[in-house]
Amino acid sequence: MDTTTTTTTTANNNNNEDNTHQGPTNPLVRALLTDLYQLTMTYAHWKTNKANDPSVFELFFRKNPFRGEYTVFCGLDECLKFLQTFRFTPSDIRYLQSTKALSHCEEGYFEYLSTIHTTSLAACHTRVSACREGTIVFPKTPLITIEGPLGLGHLLETALLNLVNYPSLIATNASRMVLRATPQTACIEFGLRRAQGPDGACSASKYSYVGGFVGTSNVQAGKSFGIPIAGTHAHSYVQSFSCLQDVATLTLSNKNHKHSDDDEQVFLDAVLTHRHDSTTNDSELAAFCAYACAFPNACLCLVDTYDTLHSGIPNFIAVAKALDDFGYTPVGVRLDSGDLVALSNGCKDAFDAVVAAEPLRRQAFATLTIVASNDINEDILDRFSNTHHSLTAFGIGTNLVTCQAQPALGCVYKLVECNGEPRIKLSEEITKVTLPGRKRIYRLYGGPSGTTPLVDYMTMADEDPPVPNNDDDDDDDDDNGILCRDPFRSQHRIKVFPKRVKQLQSVVFEQGRVVRSEEDAHDENETNDNTATQLSKTRDYVKQQLCDEFPEEVTRYKDPTKYDVMVSPTLYNYLHELWEKNAPVPIKR
Amino acid sequence: MDTTTTTTTTANNNNNEDNTHQGPTNPLVRALLTDLYQLTMTYAHWKTNKANDPSVFELFFRKNPFRGEYTVFCGLDECLKFLQTFRFTPSDIRYLQSTKALSHCEEGYFEYLSTIHTTSLAACHTRVSACREGTIVFPKTPLITIEGPLGLGHLLETALLNLVNYPSLIATNASRMVLRATPQTACIEFGLRRAQGPDGACSASKYSYVGGFVGTSNVQAGKSFGIPIAGTHAHSYVQSFSCLQDVATLTLSNKNHKHSDDDEQVFLDAVLTHRHDSTTNDSELAAFCAYACAFPNACLCLVDTYDTLHSGIPNFIAVAKALDDFGYTPVGVRLDSGDLVALSNGCKDAFDAVVAAEPLRRQAFATLTIVASNDINEDILDRFSNTHHSLTAFGIGTNLVTCQAQPALGCVYKLVECNGEPRIKLSEEITKVTLPGRKRIYRLYGGPSGTTPLVDYMTMADEDPPVPNNDDDDDDDDDNGILCRDPFRSQHRIKVFPKRVKQLQSVVFEQGRVVRSEEDAHDENETNDNTATQLSKTRDYVKQQLCDEFPEEVTRYKDPTKYDVMVSPTLYNYLHELWEKNAPVPIKR
Repeated sequence: MDTTTTTTTTANNNNNEDNTHQGPTNPLVRALLTDLYQLTMTYAHWKTNKANDPSVFELFFRKNPFRGEYTVFCGLDECLKFLQTFRFTPSDIRYLQSTKALSHCEEGYFEYLSTIHTTSLAACHTRVSACREGTIVFPKTPLITIEGPLGLGHLLETALLNLVNYPSLIATNASRMVLRATPQTACIEFGLRRAQGPDGACSASKYSYVGGFVGTSNVQAGKSFGIPIAGTHAHSYVQSFSCLQDVATLTLSNKNHKHSDDDEQVFLDAVLTHRHDSTTNDSELAAFCAYACAFPNACLCLVDTYDTLHSGIPNFIAVAKALDDFGYTPVGVRLDSGDLVALSNGCKDAFDAVVAAEPLRRQAFATLTIVASNDINEDILDRFSNTHHSLTAFGIGTNLVTCQAQPALGCVYKLVECNGEPRIKLSEEITKVTLPGRKRIYRLYGGPSGTTPLVDYMTMADEDPPVPNNDDDDDDDDDNGILCRDPFRSQHRIKVFPKRVKQLQSVVFEQGRVVRSEEDAHDENETNDNTATQLSKTRDYVKQQLCDEFPEEVTRYKDPTKYDVMVSPTLYNYLHELWEKNAPVPIKR
Repeated sequence: MDTTTTTTTTANNNNNEDNTHQGPTNPLVRALLTDLYQLTMTYAHWKTNKANDPSVFELFFRKNPFRGEYTVFCGLDECLKFLQTFRFTPSDIRYLQSTKALSHCEEGYFEYLSTIHTTSLAACHTRVSACREGTIVFPKTPLITIEGPLGLGHLLETALLNLVNYPSLIATNASRMVLRATPQTACIEFGLRRAQGPDGACSASKYSYVGGFVGTSNVQAGKSFGIPIAGTHAHSYVQSFSCLQDVATLTLSNKNHKHSDDDEQVFLDAVLTHRHDSTTNDSELAAFCAYACAFPNACLCLVDTYDTLHSGIPNFIAVAKALDDFGYTPVGVRLDSGDLVALSNGCKDAFDAVVAAEPLRRQAFATLTIVASNDINEDILDRFSNTHHSLTAFGIGTNLVTCQAQPALGCVYKLVECNGEPRIKLSEEITKVTLPGRKRIYRLYGGPSGTTPLVDYMTMADEDPPVPNNDDDDDDDDDNGILCRDPFRSQHRIKVFPKRVKQLQSVVFEQGRVVRSEEDAHDENETNDNTATQLSKTRDYVKQQLCDEFPEEVTRYKDPTKYDVMVSPTLYNYLHELWEKNAPVPIKR
């Protein structure tokens, strides 16, 4: 990768000068960031004295994105900030009272709304459980479970969906790209200009880093989240120079002469001794000279402004040799158009020729970086991985940050229990039928080392948890295995003898406060580095699951294998009883 | 449309309690919201004393989105707020100094960065010209032109691209959906939960309104921008009721008895007199009763929780008849799954049967609203427009807000002039070659009424503007016509005799201040309604161009006709001379 442009990972998000609020990254994330129907429903509930009915809502998705078979769960961090700061301000209330939809509502309703904030969340025993940020998750399993009063459950829905949808999508997209590109090439996020809005961009930087990208071009994201930043120059920079005269007097300290008095030398003179073809573009050469003098230890040049192989590369080589002569190590080139595979091999051949001509002197040219940008997507990365190319890094923008292949993860948020009774949502479409009742979700592990996920297994909340089977006796006593059923296909059952069982959800918010899990715990006195440290931990967790735990057939690009999400026999029976009870039997006469 | 849920258009964006800044809607939109390479390039320019070279940059796109032939330009409003508040804070500077990429930069560079703000924008005669917000625009024409120092031009690039890209894309997407849906059906934006982040969502609400949508479900957008808000209830609301007992005591004021003492009556009793099929779902009926009592003048029910035609519709009709009896007008139903066309016709048949049975009493049932949601996109709208359906409104979410069909408008930002000399960017791909030099862009109108756009015409900045030809003599004197050339296809030329000529760009920012055009001028003392008024004007402007000015063949869904963007012969010759001069001639031996 472009090692020259990685920055320190100091997250200054808590710096008071710019950012005094402790709430969500985007101040638009407020109680009012909701669909109107949450407020109309809540009014109807308030009117029928149901607004405080104890309820359970689950947030989940129905289908893995990108024709893949896994999803990376992200966005919980911002959800928790939202929960901590949730309230309707007096101005919000006045606005609601001014709307045609709500202007007739009773005064008491607006008083009720204005009492819902962190304190009341505590008072009414609202509890939020969630999978750990960065967990590999699958359709139909609850990512976040909200237990609390019915009205509040409605009011939290839309923002939580918004805050989970895109972060999970982008982390998944990024992780897939990284799986295609590695180990040969690194991925850098370049999408700020094409993202769907400013925080689309900043979220993309943050969660693509979690997904395995090594850095971003977005400086604000670098500052806010402590992500390494990367970048060199653009075509317009090259175009801004007009002739060699522009850099005729520019000097650079010659490190090989550093103890003499005249270590500053005119750089262009050195470059011109290495220029063997005067038909290359002069203004481009001037631009490269200026860049080299400004960033002698980080000289990476964009070589396709005029003609990659006939102008950009010869000009870069002349500049890079001069830098080498001055005691600096040139870094490499970036390609932004044309046949990236062929051009990268052309660049590599030219660099190798330099080494071959002066093998003792020009070793730096053997390991130059060749970065490609220009509409890279997962499909291209997959094809490149099966092709002979010489690229060492990809700068990925539009297709990463907009998730072009599938720009939304269809997260939903459903009521599964109310007043202690399970609820089911039926639908003309079977995929839209919900699994009723408060549930627990476990990951059952097996395989030779006991670390391979076998199946995700849901039970009702009051069932005993499944226990690992550590019996070495391979003549399995069938009674010890865990019978797992597909919730919707009665014939599909498996019996699992797990070596390890892990509960995927834990309590993350209770009594009005965020509850940190052991994995996420950190010294409360650390402030500056929290965000960066946390992101880094989550990034490692994602990598560990995708590279060490899940089998390649689940994560591969072509025809991945579906990972099983199953339910306990008790939950299966419960679902089908409730389904029969609630679905009307149409009468035909 | 769902008329019941439209709110007043009071924009409270300037309310001090929530929103004290006068800057961009999202505080992340700051000088630091930029690609690192803008800062590295600027350093190289600063080091070579080029950072203050007078330069011209143009922001444009290369291809219309959605396989269409037009684009709605939006986002200028936020660009201007960004320009007005542009600066690097001391904390930003400290962050930059801490990065690996810039830590070696000279102190003077950081001093230079910290001086760039509104005042210096004024001092250095930075001038920004742009097309009016909401203008229908085409590839290769400059939407925004920045004249100012080279360094500043770089530093503004990324944020301007980010701020134009998505707003223009969403306004275009929305306008296309509205063209397919109207006049039969209205479009409402329902995308908050699926948008790419919180301001992806709020921007979608704002710019889909500009594109012709009638409202949004997003309450925060309603408050911030004064957009009408809409929405009723969800499946979870229906599921939250368990039996008729839940609403057994709920009363509603009977408007027909309003002068008597006992105008409050138990609503369920009235409903049950109209229930003829006890197999419909009880809890659904309870939910509808509660909703009707909470919103007697705005009762629109989601009818597909259990079974649309066998439960939802009979239950709704019973409740609607009771409302009708009580003197309220029921509003209608929403469908969120299944075959929307067939179900809408099924609903309509059921409503018509009510009217037929009691024609004098049940006229309200003849005009009930039927809203459809569930993955509506432009293609579905186009198919529906050629089908017999009974829908009166669409709620559109994911496909609208993520612009699924094409999630980014590929806006670019190119240097076209530096130190008074034109610059050209060549490329291996001809579509990436830029048009050099500061340009002016005109729209030439003709047709019977003189209001039909014929061609967009670019000249160099110092050419005389094209003049309308108002000669009634139809034996055109060829010398009076305007010769327009395709910049890249030498054979493609047309001669135009325009009845009207309109320059598309005007100065929008000069001497550090926003310059308002006549169209956009408003009383500076208006504060609350500015945003709403401005959006409304822009919305009308979009509609006028799409419905009254541009011919249908340019805006239609299938095989639209390309609208010509041409250049003057002078600009044509200039482009090709510069191209030859700058492109290296590869040597083959």
